[in-house]
Amino acid sequence: MFDLMRTAVIRKEHFNAAHRLYNPDWSDKKNDRVFGKCNNPNFHGHNYELLVKLIGHPDPETGYVYDMKQLSDVIREEIITAFDHRNLNRDVPEFQQLNPTAENIAMVIWQKLRKRIDLQYELKITLYETERNIVEYPGE
Amino acid sequence: MFDLMRTAVIRKEHFNAAHRLYNPDWSDKKNDRVFGKCNNPNFHGHNYELLVKLIGHPDPETGYVYDMKQLSDVIREEIITAFDHRNLNRDVPEFQQLNPTAENIAMVIWQKLRKRIDLQYELKITLYETERNIVEYPGE
Amino acid sequence: MFDLMRTAVIRKEHFNAAHRLYNPDWSDKKNDRVFGKCNNPNFHGHNYELLVKLIGHPDPETGYVYDMKQLSDVIREEIITAFDHRNLNRDVPEFQQLNPTAENIAMVIWQKLRKRIDLQYELKITLYETERNIVEYPGE
Amino acid sequence: MFDLMRTAVIRKEHFNAAHRLYNPDWSDKKNDRVFGKCNNPNFHGHNYELLVKLIGHPDPETGYVYDMKQLSDVIREEIITAFDHRNLNRDVPEFQQLNPTAENIAMVIWQKLRKRIDLQYELKITLYETERNIVEYPGE
Amino acid sequence: MFDLMRTAVIRKEHFNAAHRLYNPDWSDKKNDRVFGKCNNPNFHGHNYELLVKLIGHPDPETGYVYDMKQLSDVIREEIITAFDHRNLNRDVPEFQQLNPTAENIAMVIWQKLRKRIDLQYELKITLYETERNIVEYPGE
Amino acid sequence: MFDLMRTAVIRKEHFNAAHRLYNPDWSDKKNDRVFGKCNNPNFHGHNYELLVKLIGHPDPETGYVYDMKQLSDVIREEIITAFDHRNLNRDVPEFQQLNPTAENIAMVIWQKLRKRIDLQYELKITLYETERNIVEYPGE
Repeated sequence: MFDLMRTAVIRKEHFNAAHRLYNPDWSDKKNDRVFGKCNNPNFHGHNYELLVKLIGHPDPETGYVYDMKQLSDVIREEIITAFDHRNLNRDVPEFQQLNPTAENIAMVIWQKLRKRIDLQYELKITLYETERNIVEYPGE
Repeated sequence: MFDLMRTAVIRKEHFNAAHRLYNPDWSDKKNDRVFGKCNNPNFHGHNYELLVKLIGHPDPETGYVYDMKQLSDVIREEIITAFDHRNLNRDVPEFQQLNPTAENIAMVIWQKLRKRIDLQYELKITLYETERNIVEYPGE
Repeated sequence: MFDLMRTAVIRKEHFNAAHRLYNPDWSDKKNDRVFGKCNNPNFHGHNYELLVKLIGHPDPETGYVYDMKQLSDVIREEIITAFDHRNLNRDVPEFQQLNPTAENIAMVIWQKLRKRIDLQYELKITLYETERNIVEYPGE
Repeated sequence: MFDLMRTAVIRKEHFNAAHRLYNPDWSDKKNDRVFGKCNNPNFHGHNYELLVKLIGHPDPETGYVYDMKQLSDVIREEIITAFDHRNLNRDVPEFQQLNPTAENIAMVIWQKLRKRIDLQYELKITLYETERNIVEYPGE
Repeated sequence: MFDLMRTAVIRKEHFNAAHRLYNPDWSDKKNDRVFGKCNNPNFHGHNYELLVKLIGHPDPETGYVYDMKQLSDVIREEIITAFDHRNLNRDVPEFQQLNPTAENIAMVIWQKLRKRIDLQYELKITLYETERNIVEYPGE
Repeated sequence: MFDLMRTAVIRKEHFNAAHRLYNPDWSDKKNDRVFGKCNNPNFHGHNYELLVKLIGHPDPETGYVYDMKQLSDVIREEIITAFDHRNLNRDVPEFQQLNPTAENIAMVIWQKLRKRIDLQYELKITLYETERNIVEYPGE
């Protein structure tokens, strides 16, 4: 009756944050040349849209790969509470030494969620920094 | 002149349906604990957005992988006619014994379309239950 | 410094519900002719998107017309709790005698919110039943 | 041949900015109570979507109410250059003394554009701070 | 029981068409200066999104302002059949002498629908030429 | 500190174009039967949405897989300048002998961009012809 084919579930959440892109080992001039207006020392910000994908087998008793309410709760506890209405450079420990590009934010989100999601599930992250700039972090 | 690279075409359709999530082998209490408000015995409902992806080689004479008008017709005949403005639990035979979670709905859609789509095409299903809850069923 | 021009703030929320359209004073035949597949006695459902607009003067001390967090809370208490994951016909008292068309749902939402929103604010409701069927209830 | 009915044209643009909401005349405690997480002293940010509406009569020779390329250029010169990738509180003179709520940002945008748009056109501003928080500033 | 407040219903439809903007009374040079790349004599095209709004009183027996299925049928008969997959300049009689700007297309749509929609309803047209260029034609 | 996991960046751009689908080796009758209203000899058109995905390793010094501003510039130079506000059949050399189906447009875009994007990056194209008709060209 139940097909044991691997299936993906995706939960979409969002957070609003400020950030600045720069490399502290570089001169102001080089930071300006490479990061342009994203290097504004007073910060700018985004509405980030986050898609968290888990791939696994549906449970024959529930028909769920993963309870989406639980997935939403895990994302809220690990990511939204830590990132929403924050300055990523100043308020989030992971970006004290790491440039908060969309690529790196997606990687940090993956690392934080990987600890909470059972390893029977593949975990993949998609992050919209804007409607036109998107990153996919596929993890292992 | 024509590149024979495998290419995907995706057609988006939608249907509106009522459903209830529960496992008839469980107590009311356990159904409530696991399925929460989705277990309302009077049903609730969704606008489902369905993406059907076919992967194959473009026909050198048409430049089409698949005629999207034909694909839309097949989806309408197999899925929309059967699911749209229906109660999935009561009106759709496939869910008489199968919990109509998004995971299971996507699987049933895949099985119904697989019979109609030539096996030279890979078939993959994405189903949006809401804007924030999404399932991908990749088939074989 | 502050302009006292009337300004609108709009909060978007959503709920998922089942419903059936019919007039109990009519024959089945007439209900079928008028309401078509929306008259399925087993119900169908939608993801409703709700926009609540308040028009008033910004407070010079806050720069807010209305605190959007408070507006979201009022909508949640009055509407989402009552309508989300419900069968509008069976579970919601206002639709025991009133056909739950999008027009009537918007009117009921307006009436429920009007009691909670100070009369210094104009109140207007927009309701998306689907992406393609939309209703605006302007109130008084 | 041409109908001289008043018609609206709307141009959509966007900018990404950081901001903080607070009233410098208030205690930290009161700012926290009123503005909550929007009062983060390290700032947070948004992708703002801006709709600029001009209402006027189509020119019988062009069929245009207003050249949308020109409207886009005016918005870019007056708003995008000044606000995009900026910290509204620190980098934008208009918000040195004015709390950058969505209401006030919309009012400032209206005031800046009003100087550039001929008075034969009504001017109205809609600003999306997030997909769920929207402001309309109708001007005079 | 039923509130007789005026309420709006909106139906969204779409069509895909080619067009070219120019004034036959002008030199090529002037057409190029005014209409730029929209003046390509080989045409370009758009996916137009059309919103048709009717304002009236809900019928106490149905709860409908207007049957959305009927409204969709009228739009299809009058507009979609005539405009979809057409070259507006060459295939649509109304644009033989009228420049197919979004403003003029919205006016023509209004005129064609006004003949089919009972005068007890106000009729208003919104037309998206692109996601960023929008026109509203309010009619009388 | 930096994870060298392969990561994808996606840039979204758009262009508006006219086209006609037909095979010059076929009779009018056969073209009509196969391509239907897409075979209008006067052309029709679309707002194409283009997603360009590059897969590679983030640079440890910038945190970028690829500078999105540079990617946008490359897409503009190679694709937007050549396709936007054009008639694909008449104005674009690649479609003189090639039917401009979405499948073929995506392939041509891939070929044009492949020459400009360093081979260390995988390149994948997604093209929306309409909101409901989508093509993915995965390249090699």
